[in-house]
Amino acid sequence: MKISLKAVICGVALVAMGSLAFAGFAKPEDAIRYRQAVMTVIGQHFGLIAAVVKGQSPYSKDEVERNAAVLRTMSELSWEAVMVPGSDKGDTTLSDRAMKEPDKFMVAAQQFESAVQKLEQSAKSGDLEAVKAQFGEVAKSCKACHSTYRKN
Amino acid sequence: MKISLKAVICGVALVAMGSLAFAGFAKPEDAIRYRQAVMTVIGQHFGLIAAVVKGQSPYSKDEVERNAAVLRTMSELSWEAVMVPGSDKGDTTLSDRAMKEPDKFMVAAQQFESAVQKLEQSAKSGDLEAVKAQFGEVAKSCKACHSTYRKN
Repeated sequence: MKISLKAVICGVALVAMGSLAFAGFAKPEDAIRYRQAVMTVIGQHFGLIAAVVKGQSPYSKDEVERNAAVLRTMSELSWEAVMVPGSDKGDTTLSDRAMKEPDKFMVAAQQFESAVQKLEQSAKSGDLEAVKAQFGEVAKSCKACHSTYRKN
Repeated sequence: MKISLKAVICGVALVAMGSLAFAGFAKPEDAIRYRQAVMTVIGQHFGLIAAVVKGQSPYSKDEVERNAAVLRTMSELSWEAVMVPGSDKGDTTLSDRAMKEPDKFMVAAQQFESAVQKLEQSAKSGDLEAVKAQFGEVAKSCKACHSTYRKN
């Protein structure tokens, strides 16, 4: 996992140095739009699991598993876009702190990824209590990152 | 595949009948926002493959595979949101034709899904010529659906 994290930080650093080819964003606004899109999709599928956890929707192993799989794919996507120069300005809630400390930011991002991976595992197990517990861990990792790297 | 398609059409029909629980959208605007988010993510990752196909970016099997995998996940997501009542009004380019003929719409949607699945397979094969050919098929399926079900 350390190697993987280093690789990600290395990639992020490359982007931060101005090479946008890695992430493929021509303009900072494109990176902002992409990040917001990823977060919207995450919010929707996390919300569908939240409804099950809160007892507002009936538990379906297949549906929770499907939503967790989408979350897992999405959880890995937006970090490159965070480091696109200039994308902490304009229509965004990203704090400029993320670009100033990419290594610390990536630790927080990695905690989210890891929590989501475990959520997917618990979803596959079909154990609703495990899903509930891990859902809480994911929510904590969202909050931890947002409280530090999101404006407002 | 016929059974799977029927199941999807059945799901879509349920949503069309007013049961939003399946898709989990409280308001039509939420469905629009979600659809646009999914399309933004699709556009980004399809664009990254397009750059390789056009020779603007160097070919990396891993990167194309990664982008194709994201596309595959995303390709299955937005159809439920298309059928949310009222979501053909407001800030959207969705034609009302989609809700009027959900069965035909889903055939077009399924053609896109199928083309993306084959793109992922060609990406895994590491054969750039196969990727290029299948990229063209995906682009065709995008265009076919957009020309019928997108306004403007």
